Amino acid sequence: MNDMLTQKPLILITNDDGDFAKGIAVLTRLMTQLGEVVVVAPDGPRSAQSNALTVTHPIRFRLQEQREGLTRYACSGTPTDCVKLALHEIVDRRPDMLVSGVNHGSNAAINVIYSGTMGAVLEGCENGIPSVGFSICNYSPDADFSQFEPYMLHIARRVLENGLDHGVCLNVNAPAGAIQGLKVARQCDGKWVKEFVKKTDPHGRAYYWLTGEFENHEPEATDTDEWALANGFVSVVPTKIDLTAHETLAKVAGLMR
Amino acid sequence: MNDMLTQKPLILITNDDGDFAKGIAVLTRLMTQLGEVVVVAPDGPRSAQSNALTVTHPIRFRLQEQREGLTRYACSGTPTDCVKLALHEIVDRRPDMLVSGVNHGSNAAINVIYSGTMGAVLEGCENGIPSVGFSICNYSPDADFSQFEPYMLHIARRVLENGLDHGVCLNVNAPAGAIQGLKVARQCDGKWVKEFVKKTDPHGRAYYWLTGEFENHEPEATDTDEWALANGFVSVVPTKIDLTAHETLAKVAGLMR
Repeated sequence: MNDMLTQKPLILITNDDGDFAKGIAVLTRLMTQLGEVVVVAPDGPRSAQSNALTVTHPIRFRLQEQREGLTRYACSGTPTDCVKLALHEIVDRRPDMLVSGVNHGSNAAINVIYSGTMGAVLEGCENGIPSVGFSICNYSPDADFSQFEPYMLHIARRVLENGLDHGVCLNVNAPAGAIQGLKVARQCDGKWVKEFVKKTDPHGRAYYWLTGEFENHEPEATDTDEWALANGFVSVVPTKIDLTAHETLAKVAGLMR
Repeated sequence: MNDMLTQKPLILITNDDGDFAKGIAVLTRLMTQLGEVVVVAPDGPRSAQSNALTVTHPIRFRLQEQREGLTRYACSGTPTDCVKLALHEIVDRRPDMLVSGVNHGSNAAINVIYSGTMGAVLEGCENGIPSVGFSICNYSPDADFSQFEPYMLHIARRVLENGLDHGVCLNVNAPAGAIQGLKVARQCDGKWVKEFVKKTDPHGRAYYWLTGEFENHEPEATDTDEWALANGFVSVVPTKIDLTAHETLAKVAGLMR
């Protein structure tokens, strides 16, 4: 019998909350139902690391666990570093899918550009691997993922079976509460506001904590990820690594004359 | 006479090479020809920081220089932190334009997703400010920007006069050598390869330096930023903060059934 025919799909997992987060444990348990799993996750929290790379110092990784169908490594780098290191130095065949998360907190709307979870997904996509980021709109370390689980399995199965278009990955978010279905949606327009809390240290000098809240610029639109989440749906946004505003190329060419 | 009519445009400047880089000094000198300039730049190198945010510790800023038409601050955060802090805590009116750079090194093609320079530009764009990133394909700290200067002035003037479409910013790159013109282009498809150099520390443990080279997946295409740069043109890519792959929404909806 040909080994290639019996080989299970290889699934690469990472996240940005670190290798001890509940979200990645849930995702790892689910993915071992679908294939051979390799986890290469940051060795601590790397939230809001976007596609940051570690360039001023070297990175390392170490084996954490190896058992039938599952190998786990912890890495000193960012989520994007984890994916690069996994692909170049760790896995011995091309992963059939990359999944990242489950993130404790929303990566919907503009959060996609800050998210370390989605940074890893964009990196997988750049490398031609069908890649999906999973997040839940609940920042609690003990968030309840049980209602989200069948949706994650469904989405992962569909992506494993069918792949995704070149340059396209998925940004999947779940509401914190009851889930009533799944909506494919577009990234909602909006921005973060009220972003800093100012404090004063014992030496009288100011320092600033980043915080804030999301301001939805199109609360009436019903085709956005924010609408889906606010109405109890899992949102699935097909997401591109080509950031070109193709529709404005001619206009910008006119402007540059 | 009405003060509003005589008020010069306010230009916010940042970068990712840090406030002592030659690139930001050049950009600052150029922009003081066009308006009132406020610089809020990282207090050291923050290359490849993408849209990373500082969330695990607070950030600070301090005044570096204040003279007619120019105020400079150094900030302990990432380029994106610098923009957020500038808009929320430093400037007393809305900037008319944000410019970032001049980066020492290319931010063309897929580099846009890793770049701290462009992270700051996406952040300005999210906040509704016409925003432009300038980079040169030369990593030398002493890079020669003289041929690029008139192009930067031209682009900045056009953007100040005309603005940019909602959600669209510009990723401008210059070749290292002679410049023969400007091309509006799309982001070239490609990826990074040969990304790690493995070393062994005195204790026998492996560590990895991120490095690599860009592999162009469409070397024949003549409408990409990589083609423009390879042929001596300044490339201008209109760049979006909406990452939705709108053209695949229906297909992905079918896949999810």
